Amino acid sequence: MATELADFLPQLDRDIRAMADWGKVADYIPELARVDPAQFGIAVALADGSMVTAGDAQKRFSIQSVSKVFSLACVLGRIGEQIWTRVGREPSGSRFDSILLLELEKGRPRNPFINAGALVTTDELLTGRSPRDALSEILGFLAAATGDADIHIDKFVAQSEAETGFRNAALANYLKSFGNLKNPVDYVLGTYFHQCAIELTCEQLARAGRSIAGLPGAPRLLTPQKARRLNALMMTCGHYDGSGDFAFRVGLPGKSGVGGGILLIAPGLASIGIWSPGLNAYGNSQAGTVAAEKLARKMGWSVFG
Amino acid sequence: MATELADFLPQLDRDIRAMADWGKVADYIPELARVDPAQFGIAVALADGSMVTAGDAQKRFSIQSVSKVFSLACVLGRIGEQIWTRVGREPSGSRFDSILLLELEKGRPRNPFINAGALVTTDELLTGRSPRDALSEILGFLAAATGDADIHIDKFVAQSEAETGFRNAALANYLKSFGNLKNPVDYVLGTYFHQCAIELTCEQLARAGRSIAGLPGAPRLLTPQKARRLNALMMTCGHYDGSGDFAFRVGLPGKSGVGGGILLIAPGLASIGIWSPGLNAYGNSQAGTVAAEKLARKMGWSVFG
Amino acid sequence: MATELADFLPQLDRDIRAMADWGKVADYIPELARVDPAQFGIAVALADGSMVTAGDAQKRFSIQSVSKVFSLACVLGRIGEQIWTRVGREPSGSRFDSILLLELEKGRPRNPFINAGALVTTDELLTGRSPRDALSEILGFLAAATGDADIHIDKFVAQSEAETGFRNAALANYLKSFGNLKNPVDYVLGTYFHQCAIELTCEQLARAGRSIAGLPGAPRLLTPQKARRLNALMMTCGHYDGSGDFAFRVGLPGKSGVGGGILLIAPGLASIGIWSPGLNAYGNSQAGTVAAEKLARKMGWSVFG
Amino acid sequence: MATELADFLPQLDRDIRAMADWGKVADYIPELARVDPAQFGIAVALADGSMVTAGDAQKRFSIQSVSKVFSLACVLGRIGEQIWTRVGREPSGSRFDSILLLELEKGRPRNPFINAGALVTTDELLTGRSPRDALSEILGFLAAATGDADIHIDKFVAQSEAETGFRNAALANYLKSFGNLKNPVDYVLGTYFHQCAIELTCEQLARAGRSIAGLPGAPRLLTPQKARRLNALMMTCGHYDGSGDFAFRVGLPGKSGVGGGILLIAPGLASIGIWSPGLNAYGNSQAGTVAAEKLARKMGWSVFG
Repeated sequence: MATELADFLPQLDRDIRAMADWGKVADYIPELARVDPAQFGIAVALADGSMVTAGDAQKRFSIQSVSKVFSLACVLGRIGEQIWTRVGREPSGSRFDSILLLELEKGRPRNPFINAGALVTTDELLTGRSPRDALSEILGFLAAATGDADIHIDKFVAQSEAETGFRNAALANYLKSFGNLKNPVDYVLGTYFHQCAIELTCEQLARAGRSIAGLPGAPRLLTPQKARRLNALMMTCGHYDGSGDFAFRVGLPGKSGVGGGILLIAPGLASIGIWSPGLNAYGNSQAGTVAAEKLARKMGWSVFG
Repeated sequence: MATELADFLPQLDRDIRAMADWGKVADYIPELARVDPAQFGIAVALADGSMVTAGDAQKRFSIQSVSKVFSLACVLGRIGEQIWTRVGREPSGSRFDSILLLELEKGRPRNPFINAGALVTTDELLTGRSPRDALSEILGFLAAATGDADIHIDKFVAQSEAETGFRNAALANYLKSFGNLKNPVDYVLGTYFHQCAIELTCEQLARAGRSIAGLPGAPRLLTPQKARRLNALMMTCGHYDGSGDFAFRVGLPGKSGVGGGILLIAPGLASIGIWSPGLNAYGNSQAGTVAAEKLARKMGWSVFG
Repeated sequence: MATELADFLPQLDRDIRAMADWGKVADYIPELARVDPAQFGIAVALADGSMVTAGDAQKRFSIQSVSKVFSLACVLGRIGEQIWTRVGREPSGSRFDSILLLELEKGRPRNPFINAGALVTTDELLTGRSPRDALSEILGFLAAATGDADIHIDKFVAQSEAETGFRNAALANYLKSFGNLKNPVDYVLGTYFHQCAIELTCEQLARAGRSIAGLPGAPRLLTPQKARRLNALMMTCGHYDGSGDFAFRVGLPGKSGVGGGILLIAPGLASIGIWSPGLNAYGNSQAGTVAAEKLARKMGWSVFG
Repeated sequence: MATELADFLPQLDRDIRAMADWGKVADYIPELARVDPAQFGIAVALADGSMVTAGDAQKRFSIQSVSKVFSLACVLGRIGEQIWTRVGREPSGSRFDSILLLELEKGRPRNPFINAGALVTTDELLTGRSPRDALSEILGFLAAATGDADIHIDKFVAQSEAETGFRNAALANYLKSFGNLKNPVDYVLGTYFHQCAIELTCEQLARAGRSIAGLPGAPRLLTPQKARRLNALMMTCGHYDGSGDFAFRVGLPGKSGVGGGILLIAPGLASIGIWSPGLNAYGNSQAGTVAAEKLARKMGWSVFG
């Protein structure tokens, strides 16, 4: 499998770079708007412990919403199923930053992978500790999951989002009005913006996902049941209102971020980090989604048979 | 595996029957409202060709929305991907009979497994043929899939729904107003009500799903890619606004009907027919969902690792 | 006042005819789609008993939703305030044929002047009598209100709408599914389509509104309180999601129809019938709305001071 | 008329105080939650220059959303009709603090009398000046309108709302995300909370409304057309999702606030200030609404005839 991949990834890299349409970088966070969309990297961690990469796989990028998987993992580790009293497990059918359902459903976000839900997860992580300690817990999880302590937060991106993240501020205040934030709004937002500004390379991201993929030799950071449930949530909710289409086309659980990253899981087989900063209409990486589909098809990786 | 199952299913049957809460039978279709909720059957078709059953597995029940899987399979076989110009592939986050999104999204249903989307599928199946021929095509598909021609439509149930199915009539008229039904409203509704009134036993349902599960020896009625895509749709959209929860708890693709049936697929491993007519708050079989969860956990069947 | 009007209306007629933009005739009812939009008529019934007209004031047009005022008047006469258990009194903020709020508000229409609410009113009128008798009651009310028995239903328009009125059929079925129609769906729709197909001239419409305007010498068909309340409903709900703008610009209660008619009331002063078949974006008469605004400003007629 | 009122108001005061149900005081602003609901005051400024009062008419209360009328009047005076590029003139059919439509309508509030719209008005008032100066302008308008400079802001109420007004903070941030606030969110919120915390007595409120009612001898602070348009907006939008019902029952333009105040206008006849702090389900004064209805009926004041 490693050999087949080693042949395939360079070709995939060429195919992606030959694509005319890279999508548009997120423009609502000024620091991200400056990134060149014509970049692409991929890294695949296999069950045999090998890592195969292509393109810009060593370049650091802002993981943004991919961080929601790791903050949820931390919360599940700490309080377990109690988190579901505060947030649901259903696809929202709405944009990542939608506030509409929050009014109809009285402040309980549909799932932890839309922004409203991730703010609740972060709030839970903050409870009983400082923003610094909450961020340390996520960074510590990532260090353990990747076996690599060289993981940082880009303060300029966090700052940029703090200055312009009005929609997240709206969501946080709205949650607070329903009593579904325990901590001060500013603490939650500050922690959330810093968590989103964590930088990883594709290779680090692929390593970070090994525990969720249940690969042999991966650090045991989650019980198998928790890993399966994270995968289930990624499958039904990982790509906002493009989740159904991603499941249909790619057939693997994944989580995207507006920085252009995608964590893709082939349970038991591989953990994949993909990055290309141009986005499609749903706010998911345009080239990254195409690459995920091509990779899954080529390797015959689909959870659906 | 067959041996393990042969031990487990009778115990599962006892456990389910010991449950206090059977849920409520669908009361909006008078014929279904008369069914005793305290019934339960399960049948598992395995990859080795064996069939293991328990409880009321030989009892016929109204498959209702489970039929949407088979009508979609027929349409995919006939016109393939063209169907997606008329209906989406995203979870709706709404009740099975919701009309709200249809207004916001101008007559294009979110997916083929909510009522609005299934009416479009049925309309496509009707195009160029009579209601009788369209129903024959679905029945023919089921006969081929099960290897059993003894499959019938309960005319009283179809009649009962025709007399009281005002919400489906609203959906069909609303679709027509947007030009997203080609055939007369009455033809589409009549065909749809008859399709929903198909009766199967759990064993027949399990046999019918073997092609979708891609079991060795199953009739080749679908390409592997089409089967995978049906599974993806069942995973993200198969249980209406309870789809995320089902994926989280059970970890397998499935499709429920208000008759209390569930078709559950363990890709490559098993095709499962479950029936218990009492429903939970989402309109999915209460005991059937519990049984699906227990079975998947016991057998270690999850697409998520 | 009659003299001032006699001077002004011909000028208004010329001004309107000089307008470049007549709007678009309703195209969802084929019979109405054939009407030439470049027509305009106005008739003003004054408190002194005089009638001043201009333009096509003697031409018959399809009153469509203006009929909702008269069917509500009949129902208020028959069962009084009981009707408010079935329909609200609030502006909907939605299009005339919206179904969205009906789902959120469980089958209770916001007000009797959107289609869903008018279907409930018509259903109430049908209760205990045949469609023919219900229509006779509305025609009888109009005959008494106008003092003119020469009022008819255009059967071709009613037929045309019956064949293509899928959105109204959706609304009626949806109401029925919530138990908020007592009579068979087809009876209600048939009666509703015929009621909408009543034809009046501007002069007849102006005469019909005199009781609602409370003009001296008008037939006493309504108590003063009922007349005031009809006016209040016309003010807040008479122009669908353009009601606020109409109140802002014109300052008088009114009710529009997609046939291009507007009944405009200056309480105690005048009852006005206006007709021009081209519609604006809200489905209200384009030129008719302009004429209403110019007339109200010229005459200093505003309920707001 | 003054004599009739002088007889009637004391009786109205007794009737109101005999009512069992005072409603509930607003509990989301802690300072307001402490107010005793069993209070009632009314003051009527008549066209002859006289003032008739009853009950707690000299007691100061927090005008809250009644201030939206005066801030809009200031903005109309300054930039006129341009404000309508940023906010609509239609009833919202939603609660005063709803955020749902703001998502569907991309950051343009339905009207200036719901919270979202009032934040836009306040933002306009802030443009080019400090919060202190913007507040001075509103206070100056009120001083001129009442002829009374003894008007103050209750800083404790403003502070209380600043600490708990998460829903308004959500609205302001959401507006900002669409570019529909020009000034910093904190400035707008701070100004808005202070504007809402203005205190008036019923008598001051009645005097303040004289210009809007167009009473002879009232300060000319608005053109007659602007006054009419304010009245039109109060009629269609002045009581949130209870506006239609208020128009139906009372028949006069009015604007309510969660402090329990109502400004009621009988154009050309009277300006009325009413206060009772207990609220009904729509967030409007419970006893105040009843008093408005009784007063209008007794005096025959209705704009609808």
